[in-house]
Amino acid sequence: MSSPLSSTVRTTLKRNKERGLTDREELYAVLDAGVICHLGVVWDGAPMVVPTGYGRIGDTLYLHGSTGARSLRVATGSPVCVTVTHLDGIVLARSIFHHSANYRSAMIYGTARVVDDPDEHLAGLRALAEQLAPGQWDTARPPTRKELAATGVLAVPLAEASVKTRTGPPIDDLEDHALPIWAGVLPARMVWGEPEPDEETAGRYTPPPHVTERTPIGVTPRTT
Amino acid sequence: MSSPLSSTVRTTLKRNKERGLTDREELYAVLDAGVICHLGVVWDGAPMVVPTGYGRIGDTLYLHGSTGARSLRVATGSPVCVTVTHLDGIVLARSIFHHSANYRSAMIYGTARVVDDPDEHLAGLRALAEQLAPGQWDTARPPTRKELAATGVLAVPLAEASVKTRTGPPIDDLEDHALPIWAGVLPARMVWGEPEPDEETAGRYTPPPHVTERTPIGVTPRTT
Repeated sequence: MSSPLSSTVRTTLKRNKERGLTDREELYAVLDAGVICHLGVVWDGAPMVVPTGYGRIGDTLYLHGSTGARSLRVATGSPVCVTVTHLDGIVLARSIFHHSANYRSAMIYGTARVVDDPDEHLAGLRALAEQLAPGQWDTARPPTRKELAATGVLAVPLAEASVKTRTGPPIDDLEDHALPIWAGVLPARMVWGEPEPDEETAGRYTPPPHVTERTPIGVTPRTT
Repeated sequence: MSSPLSSTVRTTLKRNKERGLTDREELYAVLDAGVICHLGVVWDGAPMVVPTGYGRIGDTLYLHGSTGARSLRVATGSPVCVTVTHLDGIVLARSIFHHSANYRSAMIYGTARVVDDPDEHLAGLRALAEQLAPGQWDTARPPTRKELAATGVLAVPLAEASVKTRTGPPIDDLEDHALPIWAGVLPARMVWGEPEPDEETAGRYTPPPHVTERTPIGVTPRTT
């Protein structure tokens, strides 16, 4: 079941409206394909944009950090903006003016709520861990009570959001089409390298399939 | 010649100080290796984080956008935060708590100034184009007067900035080292795909070397 995204003033695209998508499934797809977001908060009247991890459960986005972290403290109970972006390619046009990028981007606006409930706190951390490293929650040592206490979790509702994408070839002015210039797209994508074991692991254990066969960043994992 | 970065309250790292670098060359390296930044502005008291292009000339960062774009209008004369992040890998530890990411990130704080001077305007646009698509400025049709007028350019001084990085293997608690768990780093990097010509170009022109041999995103180009 999916409901349409909100349409507030700030999530209503002013320019390039054809790049806006209003389907909730598209929002999930962009978020689920990512690993890091850029968290925007206002500190002392000025914006602060911090790269950080995130996780999603249904229509709630979870953020976390050390309970002492500045960005987490500033975000608590305050308006935040969370943006996740996948760069898909460079759009090379016949004119400088029409150069662009192909991308998928989700922006979520909301007020960050501190997660106090222990069950939701643990579930949020699990979602965060699974986003960063799918399969590790059931493999690695679970968090201790002390570790849980040291990690703050914030929840942001996926209520006010927009998704913006650009795909396809350059759109040149008609009069430029005759120019003897190569035009098209240089695709970009994230790939995983060979897993690098640490000193103690090397030669003793092999990396599990959820590491060696991990879906690349930018590709939405199948949710079967 | 390089001068140390600023050390204001917000660029002084509170946590994980060992991840902070204060060398200006490191700032340049992170910026020059990127293609998109996340621009943070404050709109109506709330943060807004928008992925966009950028360019650098010396100690000035340039941003651009349609003169009608909301983020550009909101940023003008206002405090902004520009963040560029390269994800280098996923750090898989023996405990969930010590999972992390390897990354390089630059955050720049400043007030965005509208570039009125025609020469700086053009130079800024060239820097933006070269960051997005190196080599294209001298290949593609240059901007017309009308196109220049339609494109606003903002300048942000590289005066107040911080660089944060994490590299290397997981740092596990000693008592976890005996756990029979693979631990290490799953490297991540951006790669270019095969250039995809548009309809008119296909079979007529071949992509130039600056496209086919482009330095990958995340790798700082040599500044010979």
